[in-house]
Amino acid sequence: MSEKIAVETIGTIHSPFKRLEGMPVQSLGSRCAEGTVAVEQRFAEGLRDLDGFSHIYLIYVFHEARRAELEVVPYMDTEVRGVFATRSPLRPAHVGISVVELLNVAGNVLTVRGLDVLDGTPLIDIKPYIPQFDCWPNATCGWMKASRAEVERRRADDRFT
Amino acid sequence: MSEKIAVETIGTIHSPFKRLEGMPVQSLGSRCAEGTVAVEQRFAEGLRDLDGFSHIYLIYVFHEARRAELEVVPYMDTEVRGVFATRSPLRPAHVGISVVELLNVAGNVLTVRGLDVLDGTPLIDIKPYIPQFDCWPNATCGWMKASRAEVERRRADDRFT
Repeated sequence: MSEKIAVETIGTIHSPFKRLEGMPVQSLGSRCAEGTVAVEQRFAEGLRDLDGFSHIYLIYVFHEARRAELEVVPYMDTEVRGVFATRSPLRPAHVGISVVELLNVAGNVLTVRGLDVLDGTPLIDIKPYIPQFDCWPNATCGWMKASRAEVERRRADDRFT
Repeated sequence: MSEKIAVETIGTIHSPFKRLEGMPVQSLGSRCAEGTVAVEQRFAEGLRDLDGFSHIYLIYVFHEARRAELEVVPYMDTEVRGVFATRSPLRPAHVGISVVELLNVAGNVLTVRGLDVLDGTPLIDIKPYIPQFDCWPNATCGWMKASRAEVERRRADDRFT
């Protein structure tokens, strides 16, 4: 049953983070970390009207993740959890999503704030963040008890390298 | 520069929707549409602790999308927009995300509510929805002016088939 699916990459994310250790663990922790998203020229037309959105999803590949682990201790916890109940990069598909703030669109290059990914990350997709679909303020979240302030302070270590 | 990346699939989404026409265009429009997510047995261990979360992201492949279109008229609009400023399935990577309500976890099968995907959709990943990271109530959203009620009422047609 299992199979791999070939997914198109559309560009590259350029961030200030050259290595995982010390990186913010979510975009909350990097509100000041600006970077750029270079979309391949042949897809630039698809960016039309994106500049009306204050926030966007970036969907990308954890390209430095070399393995999958079905159970992990997340950065924001001290206990072992199933990987699908965490945002660990060591998931079977090695696919990540981040909501970042969109500052500017110039041709095929976006400037964004709140990056929590490594420099050189391959980009799969960009989607507009639409609060009507995407914001569920009353969602409950199991083991994840940390406040926004705690998430902002937390930095990555070497557990997922 | 361009390349495709091979991404692992981890299971299959089973929904009430056998064809695109008439399907809700977002999970808002299918609050009553329940379905199941069958994760492959070999990944079941990764679901541990997921049941503490009321909402989850499903990341999947638009398996019926046969082409990409860089400019589309979205369901919730009447004008042509760049595909990355929409949630159209006809995007280069054919990857979709939905936030759904998690009702139950039994072994390797999740029961969820709010599906807006076709039956048989290949699943790439499951992530917990964590409001501290994922909820941006003040995000502004360009062309997308529809209220939650309008999104709930809207149904897909054949424009993306």
